Amino acid sequence: MTFPRLNINGERLWNSLMALARIGATPKGGSCRLALTREDREGRDLVTGWMRDAGLKIHVDEVGNVFGIRPGRNARLPPVAAGSHLDTQPSGGRFDGCFGVMAGLEVMRTLQENEVRTEAPLALIIWTNEEGSRFAPAMMGSGVHCGVFTREAMWQTADYQGKRVKDELKTIGYLGDMSIGAFRPACYFEAHIEQGPILENENKLIGVVTGSLGMRWWDATITGMDAHAGPTPMSARRDALYAAAGLMRAAIDIASAPEFAPHGRGTVGEVHVYPNSRNVIPGEVKFTIDLRHHEPSQLDAMEQRLRRIFQAAQDDPAQPVKTRLEDVQAFPPTSFAPALVRAVEASAAARGYPRQPILTGAGHDAIYMAGVTPTAMIFIPCKDGISHNEAEYAQPEHVEAGANVLLDVLLAQTRAT
Amino acid sequence: MTFPRLNINGERLWNSLMALARIGATPKGGSCRLALTREDREGRDLVTGWMRDAGLKIHVDEVGNVFGIRPGRNARLPPVAAGSHLDTQPSGGRFDGCFGVMAGLEVMRTLQENEVRTEAPLALIIWTNEEGSRFAPAMMGSGVHCGVFTREAMWQTADYQGKRVKDELKTIGYLGDMSIGAFRPACYFEAHIEQGPILENENKLIGVVTGSLGMRWWDATITGMDAHAGPTPMSARRDALYAAAGLMRAAIDIASAPEFAPHGRGTVGEVHVYPNSRNVIPGEVKFTIDLRHHEPSQLDAMEQRLRRIFQAAQDDPAQPVKTRLEDVQAFPPTSFAPALVRAVEASAAARGYPRQPILTGAGHDAIYMAGVTPTAMIFIPCKDGISHNEAEYAQPEHVEAGANVLLDVLLAQTRAT
Repeated sequence: MTFPRLNINGERLWNSLMALARIGATPKGGSCRLALTREDREGRDLVTGWMRDAGLKIHVDEVGNVFGIRPGRNARLPPVAAGSHLDTQPSGGRFDGCFGVMAGLEVMRTLQENEVRTEAPLALIIWTNEEGSRFAPAMMGSGVHCGVFTREAMWQTADYQGKRVKDELKTIGYLGDMSIGAFRPACYFEAHIEQGPILENENKLIGVVTGSLGMRWWDATITGMDAHAGPTPMSARRDALYAAAGLMRAAIDIASAPEFAPHGRGTVGEVHVYPNSRNVIPGEVKFTIDLRHHEPSQLDAMEQRLRRIFQAAQDDPAQPVKTRLEDVQAFPPTSFAPALVRAVEASAAARGYPRQPILTGAGHDAIYMAGVTPTAMIFIPCKDGISHNEAEYAQPEHVEAGANVLLDVLLAQTRAT
Repeated sequence: MTFPRLNINGERLWNSLMALARIGATPKGGSCRLALTREDREGRDLVTGWMRDAGLKIHVDEVGNVFGIRPGRNARLPPVAAGSHLDTQPSGGRFDGCFGVMAGLEVMRTLQENEVRTEAPLALIIWTNEEGSRFAPAMMGSGVHCGVFTREAMWQTADYQGKRVKDELKTIGYLGDMSIGAFRPACYFEAHIEQGPILENENKLIGVVTGSLGMRWWDATITGMDAHAGPTPMSARRDALYAAAGLMRAAIDIASAPEFAPHGRGTVGEVHVYPNSRNVIPGEVKFTIDLRHHEPSQLDAMEQRLRRIFQAAQDDPAQPVKTRLEDVQAFPPTSFAPALVRAVEASAAARGYPRQPILTGAGHDAIYMAGVTPTAMIFIPCKDGISHNEAEYAQPEHVEAGANVLLDVLLAQTRAT
């Protein structure tokens, strides 16, 4: 595989990323553009304007996914696609999602100024609501595109104020008329910050993403009896928080066990205590459990251990609470298309970028896309592994390197002159 | 000590309690009358109307405390007082506070219909904002009366919407003109449900309250680093929730230690997790700690143990978080006036009510009053020890018995004919 001697413009890419970050800018240097808000619209308007300037024709589908098409010589060939998302977490950073879209835009700009024509068309995709912060589930737009969720169900999804996705799409002007799934690419690449500390710790520039951790989510509910903190003797308590705190630690400990290292992950991210009053013994605690692993059999083993822990708590006569564990969502471990993974590796090698294979622990639109089309991802390091945080940061050289690899692999998949 | 052969009217007392409970009634059979709301006003209006009908003259002080005076033969004698509060927790019951006020009202009604005249005046007090749910601190009205808080500071206290106590007092018509502390009783009694399971478990009708547990409150803050739940390996995490869950259990365990039984109490009632998102490792957890004991030296020992636990967590190189423990509030253990405690015991004995000495673990207006005037409390059982809960329940016979004891001890403190 050989690559054309073409480089993206790192400074232009960085400046565009920073201009985008100013929309919904937060005090500590991050961005807040929750899906389908005014800020999301402003971000989409800015980037689709740039996409048009770069020669792309814009199509919007019925859940607001944006497809910008750069024609090839052969219009009958399916497009070679890149993409990611522009929406953010409430206190999100400037790179999660945005880097992938803007790297794709920078590739299109580079091809335009170098008057490169490709055999197959190229496409740049902006997926709707990847974060899932305002509207659950996450990866909504790619999920609908890939047949995981129905258009109708997602249209009816409401935020905590009761506002619905379809109405909000209309409000921001991104309820398109392109049919769901009408866009059929030849393959899909997504460039992204790692959102973890591995590449930085290993001093690597490019993560050649071979697949993703499988993930299982549960909601745990611990029910005791709320009672006044003063008059109730310790021996008479049914303290849901005391029991819950033990179960939280036990759930997290599963992932730290040597047999599940280094790919096991265990997180309790969300906790709700009722009535949550200083002098009332909590009567109910709800919390989330997130377990991940790359090996399906290991993920099964982790789940079994979690269920045994909850069963033991339920059966323990000394534990005066009830426990419930409800399935919420699950993704199986995913392997990306070997040929595309090799292309990413080959580009990084040709450019002399220090690199290593890596798994993604986070969900990405690429994971749904991998179910319907050959897919791969390109990771770059992010400072201290921090993401979903205003402090999220990627170095300009790393941003540039990631976009160069994206340029190489997109061109390698279509014949360019 | 002898008691007149007089009994309160248990049915009238019960019916009045139930009529009061209909103001702010909740779906599950409790009441919601947060301090200085429309419901609090309606409750106050109903009860002060009844107090006037029972021959009391109503005075309201500058923080809304209500003093209903029943004249005695000797107007120069300080009044013998009973009281409690009418405000409730958000999902409060029908008895906490209300029982004490309504038992006092029933005493006044009984004296009126029996044309009993007393030597000293009698007084019935409704304290403002005992619960502290809407406006912190709790026991606000009695605290100002007893010089614990200043009138000015409490007037400026705001609820979560920014509404201030002084404005809300004015709005509900209970910003009175009686000077703070102008009312000076000879002594003070408060009848109350136990809010714990001891009397019910011991099959006792009357708790002769000898004093209160001392209480210390802290706010704990555990600071790690929030990071994405997927890509962050277990070994690279600074999971504030994992550390916090261990510290919560350790704090509660202090009170369960044999050396602090049976009077030790340890509660984590309130927990706040940031950012509290399913797929983000928590970067910060705040939680409350409440430790109580009747012996000052034991309470000191409990505090020392708590501080050692937090210091050890802070010093542990394997614990990648910071811990902070802030003092919030404290009450020393209180002993009630021995002569008044003996009077409660004597009344219960004379009436043949099964009784036992008991400590209050909860805060009460009586605890502040004990600092400025001889004070005692009368407890009756409540079902399953449940309080601060819509399911709170006291049996009509127990309500009646408690009010009979209150009648006896009030009359014993003034000379009645």
